[in-house]
Amino acid sequence: MTQTYNFNPGPGPIPNEVLAKAQQNMFNFEQTGMAVMELSHRSAAYERVHFHAMNTLRELLDIPDDFSVLFLQGGASLQFSMLAKNFLSDNKAGAYVLSGSWAEKAQKEGAAIGEVYTAAASSNRTYADVPVFDPADLQENTAYVHLTSNNTIYGTQLSDWPACEQPVFVDMSSDILSRPIPWDRVDLAYAGAQKNAGMAGVTIAIIRTSLLDQASGSLPPSLSYKQHADKDSLYNTPPTGAIYITSLVLDWIKEQGGITEMENRAKEKAALIYDVIDRSNGFYSGHADKDSRSWMNITFRLPSEELEKKFLNQASERGFTGLNGHRSVGGCRVSNYNAVPREHVEILRDFMLEFQQNHS
Amino acid sequence: MTQTYNFNPGPGPIPNEVLAKAQQNMFNFEQTGMAVMELSHRSAAYERVHFHAMNTLRELLDIPDDFSVLFLQGGASLQFSMLAKNFLSDNKAGAYVLSGSWAEKAQKEGAAIGEVYTAAASSNRTYADVPVFDPADLQENTAYVHLTSNNTIYGTQLSDWPACEQPVFVDMSSDILSRPIPWDRVDLAYAGAQKNAGMAGVTIAIIRTSLLDQASGSLPPSLSYKQHADKDSLYNTPPTGAIYITSLVLDWIKEQGGITEMENRAKEKAALIYDVIDRSNGFYSGHADKDSRSWMNITFRLPSEELEKKFLNQASERGFTGLNGHRSVGGCRVSNYNAVPREHVEILRDFMLEFQQNHS
Repeated sequence: MTQTYNFNPGPGPIPNEVLAKAQQNMFNFEQTGMAVMELSHRSAAYERVHFHAMNTLRELLDIPDDFSVLFLQGGASLQFSMLAKNFLSDNKAGAYVLSGSWAEKAQKEGAAIGEVYTAAASSNRTYADVPVFDPADLQENTAYVHLTSNNTIYGTQLSDWPACEQPVFVDMSSDILSRPIPWDRVDLAYAGAQKNAGMAGVTIAIIRTSLLDQASGSLPPSLSYKQHADKDSLYNTPPTGAIYITSLVLDWIKEQGGITEMENRAKEKAALIYDVIDRSNGFYSGHADKDSRSWMNITFRLPSEELEKKFLNQASERGFTGLNGHRSVGGCRVSNYNAVPREHVEILRDFMLEFQQNHS
Repeated sequence: MTQTYNFNPGPGPIPNEVLAKAQQNMFNFEQTGMAVMELSHRSAAYERVHFHAMNTLRELLDIPDDFSVLFLQGGASLQFSMLAKNFLSDNKAGAYVLSGSWAEKAQKEGAAIGEVYTAAASSNRTYADVPVFDPADLQENTAYVHLTSNNTIYGTQLSDWPACEQPVFVDMSSDILSRPIPWDRVDLAYAGAQKNAGMAGVTIAIIRTSLLDQASGSLPPSLSYKQHADKDSLYNTPPTGAIYITSLVLDWIKEQGGITEMENRAKEKAALIYDVIDRSNGFYSGHADKDSRSWMNITFRLPSEELEKKFLNQASERGFTGLNGHRSVGGCRVSNYNAVPREHVEILRDFMLEFQQNHS
């Protein structure tokens, strides 16, 4: 088998232990003679998977009882319009903190549904930092404040969670399950599963239950948080196979020591790469401001595009995958999700040091 | 291993050959050293899967060049609102043929978005037939006519496709890939994958390309058919693992002889059960009118609820799963999707005959 070091930005790696369990059990689940994907979503066997995943998520993220946990579909992109559809009524506006391309997309989807405005933006600095804002400056008619906790493309991450009177909605697609969530400052957290929580096809949404009744009255049921919450995410057929993989990933995180352990590992792994950058005398130059650095996605440039190309080609030959920067920004990016083993990061660090030595 | 005869109404069985291939290849795809679900959706390896699935679907269903093939998320339920959102502008109305509960749900989702009306309905006959209507009677402002080609819950199936001037949208969730689609009479066909086309989590939509530009101008991109079509269903991360399973199911159908073979097999298998019903002297009574019978879902009652319970219990002991009727109608239902082997239907037929003999 090819030795691959998977640094894909998403979909990203799945822990080996999870893949082994899935390969073994997914196809004859609990001796039912059926694969997980062949079970009725109304069967007791599937319901065990479904509620086990929900409960484990609650436990790991310390989700308070007054929040509802939902498994939806459509990725974070559909959440962009779903949250606007639920909460942007005629006279209310969504406030967006623009910290990267995904935040821009969230605002754009919201704008197709209702009134939106920019609360803060770092676009004029090519999103090198996470912009801050004073909650006191928010418009009076603000329905929600929308944040992106980690900016995959630019490699920045939110560290100070704002305290707002208005509901705070956070796209956590690229750092969910790698850090605790301060539930006193968050009202809706959502994430596509394919970076830290499983395979593409299931979207996690955790919403303060009291918000459900404040949603717009004339929603199509398939786009109503309340509808999905009332039916425990079994309103229509959920993506059962993807939820099964998520349940295994959650078990794995728990076995490894939980969210604190994930956070510590991520910070330690990221430090290995940031250290190379900071000690490289400018050979590697980080894109993000130091105090906005992400420990999930590390972005950097080399002295020239030619060297970047050479770096990426050699990296590819050595089995590293996913190290190219997003096509909109170029350069390089190391995605350091939960399932990336520390050993792989060490091998990458050594390669970066070697490459610098050969090309300085 | 338990011997299971999987007659689940959906998610339903997956062909054994597909499960074997998935178990073997899903976890080290094409010697990449990565599972399919770990591949970037922008990688060449995943794109091969994606476009292979699209092209095989085109080939199997003989989809004309002026149609776009989309892989979406959210199931048929999200299509209910997505199609209304795309095509119900201020002055237009959606015409719904109510042939069952799912048609009702489609109309309800549409009504949350725009004007809808009922073109025909068989609700007063507990949906025992597929209602017909005269296209000449449609309102002038009709944006589309919405049909359900197979009614999973009631066991009826559309046989005469209406010829309408207006676009015809068809929910084919429970009979896609079991029959040809008359593209001169259909403008949008869509289906959740979990009955005949793979695992839950991917939704197939096949739409006449000329319709894309007629869609409402102010759509959120995530709900715009045009957006997804323009990006080859890679606008955002698609459900890559589910699309992989669909690609294997499509390959399997092709190997087995294609859609004509699936249709013939389905009709022959269904006839085995309908025969038992028709020769039972009323012990088994079919719910659907004979000329509206579905060959995908066969619904019937027994002389008493007590006998139905006994039948279902004994069936369960023998390894049959999924034979209970939908909770809204009771009775029994045999779901006879492509992946149900003829042998399993024969074993079920024998059990039905035996049960009748013991209880008449």
